[in-house]
Amino acid sequence: MAGIFQRTPKLWTALRHLSPHSTLSSTATTRLSPVDLHTPFLTCSSGQFVAATRKLHGAGAGGLKPSPAAAPERLPFSRVTQEDLVFFRKILPGRTITDPDLLESSNVDWLKTVRGSSELLLRPQTTEEVSQVLSYCNSRNLAVNPQGGNTGLVGGSVPVYDEIILSTALMNNILTFDSISGILTCQAGCVLENLSLYLEERDYIMPLDLGAKGSCQIGGNVATNAGGLRLLRYGSLHGTVLGLEVVLADGRVLDCLAALRKDNTGYDLKQLFIGSEGTLGVITAVSVLCPRKPKSVNVVFLGCETFEQLLRTFQLCKGMLGEILSAFEFLDSECMRLLNTHLKLSNPISECPFYVVIETSGSDPTHDGEKLHNFLEEAMTSSLVTDGTVATEESKIKTLWSMRERVTEALTHDGFTYKYDISLPVEQIYQLVTDMRQHLGDRARSVVGYGHVGDGNLHLNITSPAKDPSLLAAIEPFIYEWTASCQGSISAEHGLGLKKRNYIYYSKPSQAVALMGNIKAMLDPKGILNPYKTLPDNIK
Amino acid sequence: MAGIFQRTPKLWTALRHLSPHSTLSSTATTRLSPVDLHTPFLTCSSGQFVAATRKLHGAGAGGLKPSPAAAPERLPFSRVTQEDLVFFRKILPGRTITDPDLLESSNVDWLKTVRGSSELLLRPQTTEEVSQVLSYCNSRNLAVNPQGGNTGLVGGSVPVYDEIILSTALMNNILTFDSISGILTCQAGCVLENLSLYLEERDYIMPLDLGAKGSCQIGGNVATNAGGLRLLRYGSLHGTVLGLEVVLADGRVLDCLAALRKDNTGYDLKQLFIGSEGTLGVITAVSVLCPRKPKSVNVVFLGCETFEQLLRTFQLCKGMLGEILSAFEFLDSECMRLLNTHLKLSNPISECPFYVVIETSGSDPTHDGEKLHNFLEEAMTSSLVTDGTVATEESKIKTLWSMRERVTEALTHDGFTYKYDISLPVEQIYQLVTDMRQHLGDRARSVVGYGHVGDGNLHLNITSPAKDPSLLAAIEPFIYEWTASCQGSISAEHGLGLKKRNYIYYSKPSQAVALMGNIKAMLDPKGILNPYKTLPDNIK
Repeated sequence: MAGIFQRTPKLWTALRHLSPHSTLSSTATTRLSPVDLHTPFLTCSSGQFVAATRKLHGAGAGGLKPSPAAAPERLPFSRVTQEDLVFFRKILPGRTITDPDLLESSNVDWLKTVRGSSELLLRPQTTEEVSQVLSYCNSRNLAVNPQGGNTGLVGGSVPVYDEIILSTALMNNILTFDSISGILTCQAGCVLENLSLYLEERDYIMPLDLGAKGSCQIGGNVATNAGGLRLLRYGSLHGTVLGLEVVLADGRVLDCLAALRKDNTGYDLKQLFIGSEGTLGVITAVSVLCPRKPKSVNVVFLGCETFEQLLRTFQLCKGMLGEILSAFEFLDSECMRLLNTHLKLSNPISECPFYVVIETSGSDPTHDGEKLHNFLEEAMTSSLVTDGTVATEESKIKTLWSMRERVTEALTHDGFTYKYDISLPVEQIYQLVTDMRQHLGDRARSVVGYGHVGDGNLHLNITSPAKDPSLLAAIEPFIYEWTASCQGSISAEHGLGLKKRNYIYYSKPSQAVALMGNIKAMLDPKGILNPYKTLPDNIK
Repeated sequence: MAGIFQRTPKLWTALRHLSPHSTLSSTATTRLSPVDLHTPFLTCSSGQFVAATRKLHGAGAGGLKPSPAAAPERLPFSRVTQEDLVFFRKILPGRTITDPDLLESSNVDWLKTVRGSSELLLRPQTTEEVSQVLSYCNSRNLAVNPQGGNTGLVGGSVPVYDEIILSTALMNNILTFDSISGILTCQAGCVLENLSLYLEERDYIMPLDLGAKGSCQIGGNVATNAGGLRLLRYGSLHGTVLGLEVVLADGRVLDCLAALRKDNTGYDLKQLFIGSEGTLGVITAVSVLCPRKPKSVNVVFLGCETFEQLLRTFQLCKGMLGEILSAFEFLDSECMRLLNTHLKLSNPISECPFYVVIETSGSDPTHDGEKLHNFLEEAMTSSLVTDGTVATEESKIKTLWSMRERVTEALTHDGFTYKYDISLPVEQIYQLVTDMRQHLGDRARSVVGYGHVGDGNLHLNITSPAKDPSLLAAIEPFIYEWTASCQGSISAEHGLGLKKRNYIYYSKPSQAVALMGNIKAMLDPKGILNPYKTLPDNIK
């Protein structure tokens, strides 16, 4: 049985005047799960929250089993007392938030599919404050949900029950920037776009770029090992992050904040925290190696008759564009149909089964232009591509990129969307779309494929007129089994969070998952950090 | 008291006929330390090895303390019995080596400064065999020294006492190569140069290149997080290694051999083993992302009047050569003097305090040439460099590179060499050389600096007519304290191994070292894997 609840400001006023030892919520809420916000909220009765009963995700018609994405029982963490609040207010005066209106946006994820019920948001400004908070929470057995920009897509960035939300938003200082080496050191709460603007003024760029850059924070990017648009060129954060400062569950500060390109003194501990989704420690500062800002950027939009030709185009492109290639993205004709239908975007070239967006960035506009010209000539004469257009001006570049970037938006107009983020050997990424289409037949409204060919990363999206448990049952575990059979990853860049934690075995063997459990137990023996996330329910 | 021993083939013949339960060596050898091979070896008496007493490294004249590099007491591991040999011969027929002549080269490191006394070399061919060996050794409490090409510089690749040497040399199969994604998967024992040749035929290269490429193995490269000549361009192995297969101390096989650019399903466990120097597991297979082979390579040799001008040249270079810059190395005039004196290499340009080697590699010879021309023109007209020469032909490229690469060889002719591999913020790398020169005054014959400016990595070498404990005492801990005061690393790319394990605290805080100890205890609770290495003596 699942339940969610909503609080009124009036109730909160009453709660704030409870006796020091009473808990802020006495509701025994159980089996919370990722929720659609359209599900009716709970009502408040007699000064207490009452958990409305609600069917488990996928447990509707047809006698389907509960989804593995459903949250497990609330673990026996302590509840926040008035004494706790006194402590937090002492160390974080004015930054200990209990107003439910202010908490609202921190309790709900960006996709608005997961809602927690935290009653306390802490906003530290320094590492020392984070350390004091975690030391206290660990001793009190209070669960903590570290939160950056809250832009994650797998329910990892919001509380599941009443975990204290520890926001890094006020830790937003740039600490140092070395204009010779390009190494930036900053606090975890710096917003990615702010860092980009800071660097661009100094002729550098961040090694990563995301659609969510206006909100996401560098600490969250690192904690989730964010991929994004520049990975093809600059590699993953495991390579570009040079140092981290992390506060462990018991408040110890782990200083691995070296701003050095090379350091082989012992195990590279910082790597453990990159992609651990806040379950092993709270990242408080980051040092990252930044590339020089390119002087020239070009974008091409091409059409291919088959996916095989698209892959051959990718190969040709790697050879002829070489060091200036910075993106190789694709979308299929179904995506184009949705862009046309729902967003009225017109196809800039003639109709094709597949479309490619190629970006180059380099240090010499003339050279880049020549390389691109030679590549396009070769691609056209060898009939790998059937049509294409090039953009060198900012506005036309944006127009071409929008054909790729606005697919997500077009999908939201097509119906309820089931979203998957799959990593596969590059030769196989489109076969999954074809097989899924055949497997679902008429049950889906649209089955579309797009994504980062250069990274072997497919975004497979399936729409239906409304939420449809039987459709979901046809998609899962089919999609995960298919991916596993190709040694793919069921989460290329989004992480596991709450929603996908129990699917981990499709991509990782049991020995690996068990070892992850050991690492969690070693670093956070009480399990207070971001509980119910990343690791599957059958290990602690 | 330190001791080393040397065995004669005659003695070994006798040993091989000992009764099944007798140990292969009954010598209670204590306090072995890194040794100069010129130190007189032990003699054999009455069928037993006798440990000759020998002064500790640095414990000579002047009442100096024992060097922290000296090995600790032999830990209470079991000794290999005839029963053990029967087991190993059963699973590794013909590949269980006890002949001391065959063991000789595996017991001594490449620099010939550290010697172990292993009496057993195992040469598995498969992961399953490695698993069986480790499972057995763990249950019998037998220590194991994993060994690749044995080209390490810090005594990490040879046994300290009688650890069983587990060689990956016969695990040398390439498993798969995907010519679209450039992802190579191979066994750990593949020699780096063989992989490079294999890839070059397919229009790709390895993302790393080392002087030791003809001997070093990819498994060892990964285990030591090797840096080398291409790091500036392609980044560290933490970014380019996509998957690992590792056998844990108890024989469990950890399969993280994904050949995917993106995979965010749980903690990135493989990262733990990159740079762990064989102390956490034995790497048996690797998958790595390989770049396309460049179509054009150029090398320039330049002279600068000051190190500040050299740094400004580096900045200019990053801006104007951008994406084609693949190396920015330096040597000082003292290096040039040694090259002239000892190797009769003549300076290709006029005399300068500092020399720079810049390499470009790209996909278009004309474009690369133009970029280089523009950069050189700017560097000369702005007086950043005073003289220079360019090479585009293979033979001249080699000649220019040899000015940088043969400094190590020239040093060996200058006397006994104290070698340091330091990582510093790039602005500070030469100040250490200047300060060291002033600090040592007349006590050193030569104090020279060279290295990878692009990576902030200084190779500081100090020579004297002979081994000189008082000179060593003047160098250390001065050099480590200086490095620590700049938040540098006392081992940029060589690792810690046996020689530098106790210096770790100069670059890592105690919390970090303690956590490394926890990880070691979790993965290898009996401590059988590469004991006495990487971690300091005061933690297990």
